[in-house]
Amino acid sequence: MNMNLPEEALRGSQLAGARLIRLLEEGDAAGIEGLKALYPHSGKAYVVGVTGSPGVGKSTLVDCIVGELRRHEKRVGVIAVDPSSPFSGGAVLGDRIRMQRHATDEGVFIRSMATRGQLGGLSRSTCEASVVLDAMGYEVILVETVGVGQDELEVADLAHTTVVVSVPGMGDGIQAMKAGILEIGDVFAINKADLPGADEVERQLAMMLQMRESGNLAWHPPIHRTVATRGDGVAELVQTLLDHRGHLAESGSLAPRQMRRDFSLFLELLRSGASEKILEAANTSPEYRTLIEDLKARRIDPYSAAEALIEKLQCEI
Amino acid sequence: MNMNLPEEALRGSQLAGARLIRLLEEGDAAGIEGLKALYPHSGKAYVVGVTGSPGVGKSTLVDCIVGELRRHEKRVGVIAVDPSSPFSGGAVLGDRIRMQRHATDEGVFIRSMATRGQLGGLSRSTCEASVVLDAMGYEVILVETVGVGQDELEVADLAHTTVVVSVPGMGDGIQAMKAGILEIGDVFAINKADLPGADEVERQLAMMLQMRESGNLAWHPPIHRTVATRGDGVAELVQTLLDHRGHLAESGSLAPRQMRRDFSLFLELLRSGASEKILEAANTSPEYRTLIEDLKARRIDPYSAAEALIEKLQCEI
Repeated sequence: MNMNLPEEALRGSQLAGARLIRLLEEGDAAGIEGLKALYPHSGKAYVVGVTGSPGVGKSTLVDCIVGELRRHEKRVGVIAVDPSSPFSGGAVLGDRIRMQRHATDEGVFIRSMATRGQLGGLSRSTCEASVVLDAMGYEVILVETVGVGQDELEVADLAHTTVVVSVPGMGDGIQAMKAGILEIGDVFAINKADLPGADEVERQLAMMLQMRESGNLAWHPPIHRTVATRGDGVAELVQTLLDHRGHLAESGSLAPRQMRRDFSLFLELLRSGASEKILEAANTSPEYRTLIEDLKARRIDPYSAAEALIEKLQCEI
Repeated sequence: MNMNLPEEALRGSQLAGARLIRLLEEGDAAGIEGLKALYPHSGKAYVVGVTGSPGVGKSTLVDCIVGELRRHEKRVGVIAVDPSSPFSGGAVLGDRIRMQRHATDEGVFIRSMATRGQLGGLSRSTCEASVVLDAMGYEVILVETVGVGQDELEVADLAHTTVVVSVPGMGDGIQAMKAGILEIGDVFAINKADLPGADEVERQLAMMLQMRESGNLAWHPPIHRTVATRGDGVAELVQTLLDHRGHLAESGSLAPRQMRRDFSLFLELLRSGASEKILEAANTSPEYRTLIEDLKARRIDPYSAAEALIEKLQCEI
């Protein structure tokens, strides 16, 4: 039955796509087999990261962007990367709330990713989900992340274009720098721009972007004001996204980005597969058992213990 | 000269300790040698994670906690894990701002960690820094993190006790669940509790903690109200922390936690060391080069490519 999942997904079944993504999150071998089948059909989607602190209204903004892209007749996938609670089933709840508006629209497919417990980490499962959506023919894939933490920065790395969302009044300049997401933005949105302080935030952003520019940038990150709850400014924002894609295509950087992504996925798979093999080899070695005992008794430190094993490790390909 | 760093750190030199932590962040071999020398002196500190979204006033609260612990005559280390910008040198700036209050106090040592670019990731370098501070005789180590993202959750995993900080008015119940940090809290602090909405947040927290409890918990996470800018409620919060340590010691869970941490560090070191060896082996293999070419031309997917190499990999220990 699982054998048909990739075929069904390619024929447009969102149920099949969702199942594949679930299997991939769980590290199920059937998921990986499915992904291999889908892979040749992928590589066409335009991936947009939408990132910002909790509370800036990312979900609402993403919702509006989806609506606007639908007016451009684009098929749209959304991958929402929300830190979710294992006991609340938060991701599922999130899906339910969001799906309502686009529930009857076959041109929109929304998935929430759990942020804990995936085999291989968040960036890997997000990347895999984007390959599934890409292969299914979604032309634009929006990846919504909370933009703090190294993991989230890696997720942003998957995107062709990254939109950094902020709001008026949330913290001063230092806070904004702390967020560490300024330097990954290709486009900036000040959401809730009807609140007091929008001018101030825009001034700060503009200043910091000036600091960031090394002089010879062909793309100057524009700053947009939006009020996502009313849809204000969203059409302009989406136009800028499409412009940025055009800019990337012209400068020949769409394809290399895709390749870099595939290559780092390959390296990561190689690493995790290899370390499994090594742990297997270690487990059968009496030396490993002795080291574990020494480690437990604090007779050896973790560094020396790992080094001792690595030194004895023989690899051949 | 570097040879003396661990000795100097053990004699109390904060400069030497800071240098060691820097070397470890950079993945420098001298740092690791230093850590090996310090390791036998570690294992005594009580590690407290303080986590919460940007803007809840964590730094100010940590500052107050440090002050209160000093009244208890504890030597205190602080590791601040702030997402920092590579161009702003944010972490350094953070140190400077915080250090002022405790600058002349030899019983306090504060370090900020960069959140990007460390070899082995954030949780590893934070863990390493805590071993350094531990060995230097700091009795309580506060680890301050932005509580979103998998990486930060891993950092929280290092702590014996985790304090989750929230504030009135920041998002509704769903938002709080999204933060995904509820289930890691041993103690909760509602900071800025003089703002309107404190009752509401406390009610929500209490409700969610009830949902979380599986019935047979020996420790019921208390909720404290604080106004860190005035120091209100901090003495009570610190007393609860010390109570929680007592609870962990009585239930015999202090030592196993330490061991689990050492063991996962060992496994991680083993994995990263092993994957380096494998990439070396791969690089000399003609098959690897062919695979890379195929990958570039999209003739093979990353999964099949990695599998093909893993299959040929021979490991022996």
